[in-house]
Amino acid sequence: MTQLEIARRGEISPQVAAVARAEQVEAETLRQNIAAGKVVVPANINHQNLVPCGVGTGLSTKVNANIGTSSDYGDVNTELEKLQVALDAGADAVMDLSTGGDIPAIRRAIIAASPRPVGTVPVYQAGVAAIERYGAIVRMSADDIFAAIEEHARDGVDFVTVHCGVTLAAIARLKNQGRVTDIVSRGGAFMVGWMLHNDRENPLYEQYDRLLAIAREHDVTLSLGDGMRPGSLADATDRTQVEELITLGELVQRAWDAGVQVMVEGPGHIPLDQIETNIKLQKSLCKGAPFYVLGPLVTDIAAGYDHITSAIGGALAAMAGADFLCYVTPSEHLAIPDAADVREGVMASRIAAHAADIVKGIPGAAERDRKMSAARQRLDWEEQARLALDPEKVAKVHRQRATAGAACSMCGQFCAMDLVAQYLGVKTGRS
Amino acid sequence: MTQLEIARRGEISPQVAAVARAEQVEAETLRQNIAAGKVVVPANINHQNLVPCGVGTGLSTKVNANIGTSSDYGDVNTELEKLQVALDAGADAVMDLSTGGDIPAIRRAIIAASPRPVGTVPVYQAGVAAIERYGAIVRMSADDIFAAIEEHARDGVDFVTVHCGVTLAAIARLKNQGRVTDIVSRGGAFMVGWMLHNDRENPLYEQYDRLLAIAREHDVTLSLGDGMRPGSLADATDRTQVEELITLGELVQRAWDAGVQVMVEGPGHIPLDQIETNIKLQKSLCKGAPFYVLGPLVTDIAAGYDHITSAIGGALAAMAGADFLCYVTPSEHLAIPDAADVREGVMASRIAAHAADIVKGIPGAAERDRKMSAARQRLDWEEQARLALDPEKVAKVHRQRATAGAACSMCGQFCAMDLVAQYLGVKTGRS
Repeated sequence: MTQLEIARRGEISPQVAAVARAEQVEAETLRQNIAAGKVVVPANINHQNLVPCGVGTGLSTKVNANIGTSSDYGDVNTELEKLQVALDAGADAVMDLSTGGDIPAIRRAIIAASPRPVGTVPVYQAGVAAIERYGAIVRMSADDIFAAIEEHARDGVDFVTVHCGVTLAAIARLKNQGRVTDIVSRGGAFMVGWMLHNDRENPLYEQYDRLLAIAREHDVTLSLGDGMRPGSLADATDRTQVEELITLGELVQRAWDAGVQVMVEGPGHIPLDQIETNIKLQKSLCKGAPFYVLGPLVTDIAAGYDHITSAIGGALAAMAGADFLCYVTPSEHLAIPDAADVREGVMASRIAAHAADIVKGIPGAAERDRKMSAARQRLDWEEQARLALDPEKVAKVHRQRATAGAACSMCGQFCAMDLVAQYLGVKTGRS
Repeated sequence: MTQLEIARRGEISPQVAAVARAEQVEAETLRQNIAAGKVVVPANINHQNLVPCGVGTGLSTKVNANIGTSSDYGDVNTELEKLQVALDAGADAVMDLSTGGDIPAIRRAIIAASPRPVGTVPVYQAGVAAIERYGAIVRMSADDIFAAIEEHARDGVDFVTVHCGVTLAAIARLKNQGRVTDIVSRGGAFMVGWMLHNDRENPLYEQYDRLLAIAREHDVTLSLGDGMRPGSLADATDRTQVEELITLGELVQRAWDAGVQVMVEGPGHIPLDQIETNIKLQKSLCKGAPFYVLGPLVTDIAAGYDHITSAIGGALAAMAGADFLCYVTPSEHLAIPDAADVREGVMASRIAAHAADIVKGIPGAAERDRKMSAARQRLDWEEQARLALDPEKVAKVHRQRATAGAACSMCGQFCAMDLVAQYLGVKTGRS
C-alpha cells in the first residue's frame, strides 16, 4: 500500500509518525492531510536507508538540490560529492538528473548514499539510451519510456518527474502563443520532439494508467512536470502554461483515485507581481496538491546570480503557499554546477524557505529568529553561530575580521547594541 | 536655490534634464514630481563632478552601497577601492560611514572620486571627535553635531542621514515596548545615549530649523534616519517604529515648507508579510516622500548570506513602492565588508531593484529581459553576456565549463532550446 492508501485507512505509518515528530505537528492532522492529497511523503518501498520527509500543507517548506552528470561533465564520484555537499548544506531532497556516464550506476549510488528522498526524470535515461540504440531521442518507443520508469521505481527512486501534461493540445496552444522562449524544460523538449516527429500523443498522457500502476506498486510519488513552463518573464502565466496546468489538475485527480501520491511542478521565470497568482491558480486547479516550483526567477538578466533571483521568487512563492522549492545555482543558464554552486544554491533556497515558514506559522520557525536576535543583542557570538543557517561561515567571517571588545568589526567600539545597553539596562557581552 | 525650489518655480534645471534623459522620462513630469516632493535629486552645489541621479516616483529603483572605515579597519585607500568596486558593480550612490582614521580626509577623497551622489551620517564624526575631545560620545554638544553637518555640507555631501525622529517620546515608547533588540541603528544609539545621559531632547529635533537652514544653503538632501528601526523580525512594525515614522512625516512637511529636499529611511528586519504594509504606511504618513530602505531582511538567522535576505526583502519593498535600496553585504552582522563583499552586495540589490522595476513599469526594464531571453533562445552567448547584469561573470562561468556545440554544459547535447528548435522552426546557434 502507498502512504496515501495507508492514511486513507486511518492508519499512521511509521514514516508518517517520523515526519510528525520531526515537524512538531500532530500525527493525526498530518495523516488527514496525506489522505486528502495535500501532503506527500515520498518514500519508495525500495529506498532502504530513507529518513522520511513530508511535503505540503502545514509542513515546513522543503528544498531540493538537483545534481547529476551532463553529457560532458561528471561521474559517480563528482555526483556523490555534490550529494554530500547538498546534504551538509541542509537540502531536504535531491534529484539525480544525470544524462552522461553510467546513468543507472550513478543513480543507484546516489540512492544508496542518500537518507533523503531521491527524485529522477526517467525520460532522460530513455532518451539518452535511444540515441545509443537508435541514433535519435525521437526513435525511442513508449515501452522504452515505461521501462525506464519501472527501472527507476525498482531502484528505490522516491519521486519521478513525468511530463504527462505535454499533450498535443498543449503543443497547439504553444504554436498559437508566439513565445519568446518556446520550451526550456529538457524533459518537455524530449516529449515535444518525440510527439512532433512521430505525430503521436504523449504516451505518458495516453497511457497514464500504466504509469499509475508502476507508481502504486513501489509507492513512487509522481511529480507532474511542467514541460510547458515559461522560460522567460515575457512568457509567464500564458495560455500554454495554463493549458498544461489544467491537464495536470485532471491527472492529480486520477492519481488520487488510483491511490498514488502526487505533486505538481511549477515555473520557472515569473515577474514578481504574478507569483502569488501562479501559486493560487495551481492550488485551485489541482485541488490543494503540493506545489513544487523551480525558482521562480524574477528576472532573466541575472545569470551568474540566479540563486539570488530564485531566492526572491521562492520566498514569495512559498509565502503564497508553494510547498517545495527546487534550488537554482549561481551557474544556472551558464554551465553545469560544481560542488561550490550546489552549496550556494541550497543555502539561498533555504533562506527563502525559512523566511516563508516564519509567515506560514510553521512550528519553531519564528522562535529561531527570536533566539538569534536575543543572542545578537547579548553579543553572544557562539550562540549566534549555533542558531545560524550556516554556523561554519558565521564563525569564520566573524573571526577573520575581528575587533577588540565584544562587538564585531562592522561598528567596532561604536556598536549600537553595546552603546545603548548601559542606558537601557540590557546585558551584552561587554557590559 | 535647491532643486525643490527650482522645480516649484516651473523650471527644469540641468540636473533634472540629465536625470530625465538617463531615465527616459518626460522632464516636465519629473519636474512636477520633484516639486511635489515625490522625487529628490541629491545634488550638493559643492559636489563638482556629480552625474545627477533621481530617487522617487516614476524612476528606476536606486541602489546605495555603504562603505567607510571602522575603528579597526580601513584607510583612505581601502575605501577608495571599495568606492570603485561599488561604482563598477553599478551602485547608484554610496554612503561614507567612516568612524576610523582621518574621517574628513576620507570623505573628501570619496566625494572627489565619486560621480555618484555621496551620503554620510555626520553624527558619526561628531561622536568620534567627542571621544577624542571629551572622552565620551555623550559629552558632545549640540553645536558639535551641527558643526559636523555644516562641514559635510561644505564638502559636497549630497545627502545626510539625520536621526531627527529619535525623540524623548520615541524613547518612552521604546521603554514601554519590550523589544528583543532595542536599538540597532548606530546613529540612533549615539542619540539615545546622548539624550538619556544628558536628560535632554534630541537637538536634531529641537533645532530642526537650524538643520533645514544648512541643508537649504548647500542643497543637501535630508535622509531622515530611522534610529528606532527594528533590528529583528520580532520587533518589526511595532509601536516604537511607527511613533518615530509619524514624527518623520511631520518633519518631511517642515522640510518641504523650507524648500529642502527630503527622503525617509526605513527598516531593517521585517517578516515577508509585513513589507508591503511598511511601505504603504510610510508613503501615507510621509505624503509620498521617497522611501529609502535598509534591506529589508526577511530573516534574522542568515548571517553570512544577508545580501540574499535583503535582496528578497528589497524586491518586495521596491515592488510595493520603495524607491531606494541600501545594500546589505554578506558580512553584515559579522564583520566590516571587504571589496568582494561590496561587489556581492551591490549585485544582489541591483537584482532586487531590477526585478521590481519590471513590475513598476519602469521604461526599458522588461524590454531588457525580453531581449536577454530572445538571445538565450538563439543560444547567442555574446549577446547574453552583453545584456546581463554582470557581463564579465557570465562570460567567465560559461567559458570555464564549456561544452561542444552551441549550448551550455548544463544540458550539453540535450539542450531544450536546441532540441525543440528543429521541430518548431526556431533559429538557434546550432540549427
